[in-house]
Amino acid sequence: MLKSFIDVDEESHFPIQNLPYGIFRPKGKTAPRAGVAIGDWILDLSILDDKGYFNETGAGGKRVFSEPSLNAFMNLGPNVWAEVRTVLQDLLREDNPEIRDQADLRDSLFSRQSGVDMLMPVEIRDYTDFYASEQHATNVGTMFRGRENALMPNWKHLPVGYHGRASSIIVSGTEIKRPLGQRKTEGDQPEFGPSMRLDFELEMGLVIGHGNESGSRIPVEEAEEHIFGLVLVNDWSARDIQAWEYQPLGPFLSKSFATSISPWIVPMAALEPFRTAGPKQDPEPLPYLKGSGDQTFDIHLEAHLKIPGLSEPVVVTETNFRTLYWSMAQQIAHHTVNGCNLNAGDLLASGTISGDEKTSRGCMLERTWRGEEPLQLPNGEKRVWLEDGDELRLTGWCQADGYRVGFGQVNSRILPTQVEETKGGSRDAVLSEKG
Amino acid sequence: MLKSFIDVDEESHFPIQNLPYGIFRPKGKTAPRAGVAIGDWILDLSILDDKGYFNETGAGGKRVFSEPSLNAFMNLGPNVWAEVRTVLQDLLREDNPEIRDQADLRDSLFSRQSGVDMLMPVEIRDYTDFYASEQHATNVGTMFRGRENALMPNWKHLPVGYHGRASSIIVSGTEIKRPLGQRKTEGDQPEFGPSMRLDFELEMGLVIGHGNESGSRIPVEEAEEHIFGLVLVNDWSARDIQAWEYQPLGPFLSKSFATSISPWIVPMAALEPFRTAGPKQDPEPLPYLKGSGDQTFDIHLEAHLKIPGLSEPVVVTETNFRTLYWSMAQQIAHHTVNGCNLNAGDLLASGTISGDEKTSRGCMLERTWRGEEPLQLPNGEKRVWLEDGDELRLTGWCQADGYRVGFGQVNSRILPTQVEETKGGSRDAVLSEKG
Repeated sequence: MLKSFIDVDEESHFPIQNLPYGIFRPKGKTAPRAGVAIGDWILDLSILDDKGYFNETGAGGKRVFSEPSLNAFMNLGPNVWAEVRTVLQDLLREDNPEIRDQADLRDSLFSRQSGVDMLMPVEIRDYTDFYASEQHATNVGTMFRGRENALMPNWKHLPVGYHGRASSIIVSGTEIKRPLGQRKTEGDQPEFGPSMRLDFELEMGLVIGHGNESGSRIPVEEAEEHIFGLVLVNDWSARDIQAWEYQPLGPFLSKSFATSISPWIVPMAALEPFRTAGPKQDPEPLPYLKGSGDQTFDIHLEAHLKIPGLSEPVVVTETNFRTLYWSMAQQIAHHTVNGCNLNAGDLLASGTISGDEKTSRGCMLERTWRGEEPLQLPNGEKRVWLEDGDELRLTGWCQADGYRVGFGQVNSRILPTQVEETKGGSRDAVLSEKG
Repeated sequence: MLKSFIDVDEESHFPIQNLPYGIFRPKGKTAPRAGVAIGDWILDLSILDDKGYFNETGAGGKRVFSEPSLNAFMNLGPNVWAEVRTVLQDLLREDNPEIRDQADLRDSLFSRQSGVDMLMPVEIRDYTDFYASEQHATNVGTMFRGRENALMPNWKHLPVGYHGRASSIIVSGTEIKRPLGQRKTEGDQPEFGPSMRLDFELEMGLVIGHGNESGSRIPVEEAEEHIFGLVLVNDWSARDIQAWEYQPLGPFLSKSFATSISPWIVPMAALEPFRTAGPKQDPEPLPYLKGSGDQTFDIHLEAHLKIPGLSEPVVVTETNFRTLYWSMAQQIAHHTVNGCNLNAGDLLASGTISGDEKTSRGCMLERTWRGEEPLQLPNGEKRVWLEDGDELRLTGWCQADGYRVGFGQVNSRILPTQVEETKGGSRDAVLSEKG
């Protein structure tokens, strides 16, 4: 098994097999730069680049690792990503003395992750959110239309998706202010005030590394080549605002206040050993959506809730990325079939990832079945929706024999909102589709 | 009446009272730069800036007019916009010899509009499309749910809107390739092929000049200060794709193949003389949506269709911006009430602008009432949807005594799409909401 001279715990998310990319600001420095995670450390790619270590790759001399986002690096394309990864894995392996045995160089290159600020890894361009989990769509549909009509007629023919708000995508650690808005009531009059049905959504997102020209299509067989890597996504949702606003054009302010992502982008090459088959698709998809071979990845995912009265977080959800009905390649092929151009920095999120079990449902709406089954916490408290002061953390990893390829975490705490314009409110409002 | 030493026809869209901003590339030069339109000419702001004419403004020395978009200039804020406008109106007035009488300077500063390439004026960040016309929402709702249930219960309480695709926003003149996709049929199985129900939507859009911080709100009274100016918007729509895909999360690929805007951004200051009251709002909006004074502008709008068999375009629609139920200030206040951050370069479009008359309906869907009343063209042809080779042009202006403040036009031609994967198709599919 490939090992690094950097000591990496067996349960660390960041062995030499992973090498995810992020943007960070070291202590005492101002300029953001790119790094890769290895064990508890970050390797500073801007310094490696300055010293010429990438001169034999397509990234050499372009100073893409001194940018405040990974977009310029991503835009160089998959061949360059592979070249850089090869250089990094070679420099970090335990039997390579190049960095290992140069103490000064080593000191300048590595920072402890605990001592740096992790920033947004990419400048997000457009953000698309899919609805790719059959279990999630079925659960939400069942709550609103009954089991017989849970899935819309289009659902098994195309990966349903919609445009999200890009400007409010934030990196793990940024606190979330409870949003204000018009909330649904039992009648046809809204109330105004802070959302009283604040929810998380456990999702993953793919980051487009290089896109396509307007008017062109990305064939399903080539789609994965356009993916730079994957992140964890928490698609915060205000269910009472959503229920009132969402017809007929979809969710808007109920989601646009914040979407959190993890700071490390795990490259597709690191996920390759965990490739697996997704669910059988019936009916067979149209030709432009029909891929071949294994189309997804075995990624274990968890959501943890930490509330002010508890010292340890509680596991709310355990699920797996491979349960998603629509693959990433299908999402990309569908997204571009009309000629829509994708760009480096686009985020395509999966939608809530729910499995077959109650404990594998990826949001509070499903997990508590609209409040009918509140979560029972160890200190006797219950939770139906997220309260002020609560912290919600998503994490996930691929498990190999002796190491993990992990995503780190996306973690945020809910802050209260002060309002003048509140008319009181109720939690008994009817909820809306999605999820 | 203020006049320029540049000759401006009474029906020109670009008198000294307008001075809209755009990005252009002069003949034989490669670098895009900012300009303002005056009569048939463009004044090159990058050269004016180089020569120090903006030194007394907040834009001086920042070289914002040599950028390939107006974003940097917009980000300087409304005080600087006002300062620059004052300088420009002063330099261009007929009694100011400064430029008028320096022949060499004059030659270097002015290009004929007919001889330059107009480029995208802004780097679009996020794109939001509202649904602010009561007549449009009522027409579309009537077609799908009957007159009794035409408007959803939320419609008169909030400006319904949704996120659009920013990457595929293009400038006037860029041709539109007919999109491919899954089309709705009478049954529960889709067909695949080029859209056979291609439509335009006559809209206007406001460009955010400076935004707000995440977690903050823009009060309705201050909202207009965040608007840099307005453009014409054609929100191309594939109705058969839309009908199949749009539930439950709203339009996606039916709109994301292209959205066209006019190249000139008309500043709010130029629209001020045309301020007027919008429709009476009943019920009274919630306090956060309640503005004071006249909230809209009297802007005459037209859609023209030119088909290959006709030498002259046909007027399809004549309507007015002031008919919109929800004002721009209300759209902005609503958009940010949850703390969502807007940025310089965000485009907020109005949704289709339809008036009370059949001839004032702003898209083919309404204009032909889903095909029941085809447009009769002078050469005997009929049109229900747009055909390959058709050109659709939107234009609009404010009429004053002796001059017009106009928006120029947004004009595009439909190109055919070649496909392998076509299974044939029908135009009899059921249509969807919006519009």
